[in-house]
Amino acid sequence: MTSKKLVNTVAGCADDALAGLVACNPNLHLLRGHRVALRSDLDSLKGRVALLSGGGSGHEPAHAGFVGKGMLTGVIAGAVFTSPAVGSILAAIRAVAQAGTVGTLLIVKNYTGDRLNFGLAREQARAEGIPVEMVVIGDDSAFTVLKKAGRRGLCGTVLIHKVAGALAEAGVGLEEITNRVSVVAKAMGTLGVSLSSCSVPGSRPTFELSLDEVELGLGIHGEAGVRRIKMASADEIVTLMLDHMTNSSNVSHVPVQSGSSVVLMVNNLGGLSFLELGIMADAAVRSLEGRGVKIARALVGTFMSALEMPGISLTLLLVDEPLLKLIDAETTASAWPNVAKVSVTGRKRSRAAPAEPLEAPDSTATGGLASGQTVLVLERVCATLLGLEEHLNALDRAAGDGDCGTTHSRAARAIQGWLKEGPPPASPAQLLSKLSLLLLEKMGGSSGALYGLFLTAAAQPLKAKTDLPAWSAAMDAGLEAMQKYGKAAPGDRTMLDSLWAAGQELQAWKSPGANLFHVLTKAVQVSEAGTQPPRKTGLEPLGSHLYVTLNKLISFVYLFPPLNRERSTYLRGTVRLREMCSPSTVSRT
Amino acid sequence: MTSKKLVNTVAGCADDALAGLVACNPNLHLLRGHRVALRSDLDSLKGRVALLSGGGSGHEPAHAGFVGKGMLTGVIAGAVFTSPAVGSILAAIRAVAQAGTVGTLLIVKNYTGDRLNFGLAREQARAEGIPVEMVVIGDDSAFTVLKKAGRRGLCGTVLIHKVAGALAEAGVGLEEITNRVSVVAKAMGTLGVSLSSCSVPGSRPTFELSLDEVELGLGIHGEAGVRRIKMASADEIVTLMLDHMTNSSNVSHVPVQSGSSVVLMVNNLGGLSFLELGIMADAAVRSLEGRGVKIARALVGTFMSALEMPGISLTLLLVDEPLLKLIDAETTASAWPNVAKVSVTGRKRSRAAPAEPLEAPDSTATGGLASGQTVLVLERVCATLLGLEEHLNALDRAAGDGDCGTTHSRAARAIQGWLKEGPPPASPAQLLSKLSLLLLEKMGGSSGALYGLFLTAAAQPLKAKTDLPAWSAAMDAGLEAMQKYGKAAPGDRTMLDSLWAAGQELQAWKSPGANLFHVLTKAVQVSEAGTQPPRKTGLEPLGSHLYVTLNKLISFVYLFPPLNRERSTYLRGTVRLREMCSPSTVSRT
Repeated sequence: MTSKKLVNTVAGCADDALAGLVACNPNLHLLRGHRVALRSDLDSLKGRVALLSGGGSGHEPAHAGFVGKGMLTGVIAGAVFTSPAVGSILAAIRAVAQAGTVGTLLIVKNYTGDRLNFGLAREQARAEGIPVEMVVIGDDSAFTVLKKAGRRGLCGTVLIHKVAGALAEAGVGLEEITNRVSVVAKAMGTLGVSLSSCSVPGSRPTFELSLDEVELGLGIHGEAGVRRIKMASADEIVTLMLDHMTNSSNVSHVPVQSGSSVVLMVNNLGGLSFLELGIMADAAVRSLEGRGVKIARALVGTFMSALEMPGISLTLLLVDEPLLKLIDAETTASAWPNVAKVSVTGRKRSRAAPAEPLEAPDSTATGGLASGQTVLVLERVCATLLGLEEHLNALDRAAGDGDCGTTHSRAARAIQGWLKEGPPPASPAQLLSKLSLLLLEKMGGSSGALYGLFLTAAAQPLKAKTDLPAWSAAMDAGLEAMQKYGKAAPGDRTMLDSLWAAGQELQAWKSPGANLFHVLTKAVQVSEAGTQPPRKTGLEPLGSHLYVTLNKLISFVYLFPPLNRERSTYLRGTVRLREMCSPSTVSRT
Repeated sequence: MTSKKLVNTVAGCADDALAGLVACNPNLHLLRGHRVALRSDLDSLKGRVALLSGGGSGHEPAHAGFVGKGMLTGVIAGAVFTSPAVGSILAAIRAVAQAGTVGTLLIVKNYTGDRLNFGLAREQARAEGIPVEMVVIGDDSAFTVLKKAGRRGLCGTVLIHKVAGALAEAGVGLEEITNRVSVVAKAMGTLGVSLSSCSVPGSRPTFELSLDEVELGLGIHGEAGVRRIKMASADEIVTLMLDHMTNSSNVSHVPVQSGSSVVLMVNNLGGLSFLELGIMADAAVRSLEGRGVKIARALVGTFMSALEMPGISLTLLLVDEPLLKLIDAETTASAWPNVAKVSVTGRKRSRAAPAEPLEAPDSTATGGLASGQTVLVLERVCATLLGLEEHLNALDRAAGDGDCGTTHSRAARAIQGWLKEGPPPASPAQLLSKLSLLLLEKMGGSSGALYGLFLTAAAQPLKAKTDLPAWSAAMDAGLEAMQKYGKAAPGDRTMLDSLWAAGQELQAWKSPGANLFHVLTKAVQVSEAGTQPPRKTGLEPLGSHLYVTLNKLISFVYLFPPLNRERSTYLRGTVRLREMCSPSTVSRT
């Protein structure tokens, strides 16, 4: 069975993909009749050196993503993992020559097919009198004994595109660019690792790995690597990779050692999550710096992929200041990342957490509840919730994950613990704020957030005053916050319905001479009515008379259960509301 | 069995990934004690509006990749697919406030947890006197009937980061930014499609798809989508997606129609190959333009991923010129791509292939072989190769893929066909060049490239003269090209060894009065000696005397077999060399 792919036809993959990149990037033009993408401002390059690269498709964004001012002039793409046609390479050379460039450098990854086809096109172009040079890039550090074919060209090739591009943009001549990049190309190494293979469109995966294995030293054509290792941590794998690629007994090593300055590339081979890419980048930075290596720049992203291979390659390029300037030079190439022109090693990576704001002296402290009274009320609330734990869980199992009672017990225990630490704040605003933080931190889930949200908002109007109109305004503020962030409106059959009803009733506190307990009693009644299921449910109505012993504080802390939209949660809320208000039912479960 | 991941610990994933991004990006700082990344130049933002966003991890490069000048001021990250902690959001708000910003806009994706936690932090910050606004982004176009929770926040959120960032950079105030982006957020839609699920570190994939199914309308947390469709072509899937997301009977559609101008985002959900991403981008551009939609900008890349999910999302944002200016504004955010400030629709996407160079009049035409003689020689060569097809294949099966005879027969038939079209060029240089092109085009493989390379290079010295020294120089040029691009040296036990020996012998032609056939005979003898295997192989030596009837042309065309490094190919070369030279063996096979 071949792998699933989002393609039109297997044969048309490379054409369609290049057409897509060109269509979306106005800086590029296709060369008609060829799988070639060129800068659309080709005619502005008169008198400059042209840079062409390319190779098989399947390595996107390489190579077309690196065409642009300051990088490549154009690219020639083959079929997936197949060298491009000589005729197309020659056409690209002719096109840039006819646009008035003074010579062309071919930047070729070291694979036989690419070497031969680009070489042929070069010979033919030279026979036509076009000055063409060619550099063959081999940055692979996998093979400890040099193979006849030499080191393979991997992700480091992109750095050569960048360096050559900066030189060409600066007006440097063909021979000097060729010489400079040939030197740079010898000062780098790349090593790959992957969790599994990729598959060419229309084919099966090219190798198989078991679930506890990782492939080390692989190329970019789905071929197996040099070593298969046991699955290990990101740190261990990165250490192994860096050891291998910098070990001087490895003939293909890059001579990075303590004191060296490098550009680090962390390249997604295609299908690795960017989460893991970040983790591997973190491991690479720590490991290199632990070896005394200075990381001048770090590029993290997808540069040279092997289709959807879930792995990474690390590239190290030894740099000095002049080379770094070329890496830092501006480019419009779409796949070159925004890189800060600042050394990675040696700079500060964190800043101190902000200061906690000083608590403003609260003028309302004396207007609040006496501390002892508050403790009594809170302890009663906690005991009630703990007693209802199993009952609430049972109700919740019908509609949710059955942890509503557990969540509320967690809150109750947190409040009990907090009360043991010392007397609660005397100011209602501070009391509600503290309870809010406590629930946020200890209760968790949406419940914790909703209680916290309500209490935080409700605390604000109580900062200046604690009279009855202020408590009504506090209810309004809490309701508004709950609606805003919880995205429920009255009538949505959420717990907001009963709260909303109570809040409407508490408006009476804003009138002069309103009676505290009379209004509160009424509010509890209407909130009970608000919890009545709109149609018959099989649950017996529990009666309309509530044993009103709660004070305002309890109204804010526990009359307002979580904003859930499940019917049985809605009903459960009724039970909780009633039972919390009725001492006679506290022991029921 | 949980999926393989390159991580250190499951619990530390989000911390390590953010640390990696910050380590590699000097524009970012971590806020100590929190999973928060902030611009490192925070203190330069005095008097401006700060922009904070974030959410669960697993969406990288979102959100930290979009922190930078012109985009976000900072981000707060939760655990994988989990809303960030309120305390960390509040710490980020305090940090940017203490740096002297005049207010903060929270840009939040529409998920209950994010809404509540960012909402709470907002309420707490406001209670401290910090001006904080919040916009909740819901760009999902999957659900045709509006759900209570509203549309989910997807990749379009990144466009809001960009627009808000450009406004903040321009010094616009908090209220105006909030209002502007709230309007923009309503003018977009996003739809996802995937070939399979992703898996949270430490867990199994979150849903299963069979090999012929595709999931449509999924979110970015590995959750299943709204519809499961049969596998189809890229074009069909894109058409279905665009139909769905622009259909006015879909309550969550984006009202894109003929004449609309849009920004198109083609977002890799994480694990799709960039090849497929390009194919889907191509399909999207064609489909939209086919509907009369003007694509103002197209962004292709990984912006908002769902770990390694192999799929894409398409986002459409309706734009006018002022909005486009904000999209085009500069930013240093590392994950924002280089986008040309040019409309995608309406511009030229290709340029004409370059003109073929005019063939220079060849002054050597009369110095070459008579046309009739050339035809006889070439026909003899072709007949010899065709007669040896099976024999060469049999030799090749021992060491290669057994197609050496087939490849050479293909070349022979191509030459035979070409000869029927008319007389070959009279000039040796043109003859070798034409044969080179023919073999390149029709023979294929490394053989075709190597013959082509040899002949192209050999043709050059024959342009000016065709005397014996010129033919010797032609051999030199061909050998040099073969060595250079084929990466073999004499003595490497490749076919170059015999060619090299012959070439050395042909140096004699450069001496005055050298005899054509005497030197050629000697060259054939030494090249035969050069093919002798260096140690006993079991193959009988075929005798040292060769029947020399070949002229110079054949020397160049077929004395030089492909440059392979396999032992039996090396031996096979000997057979071919002998048999082609000996009429008595032509019929053998």
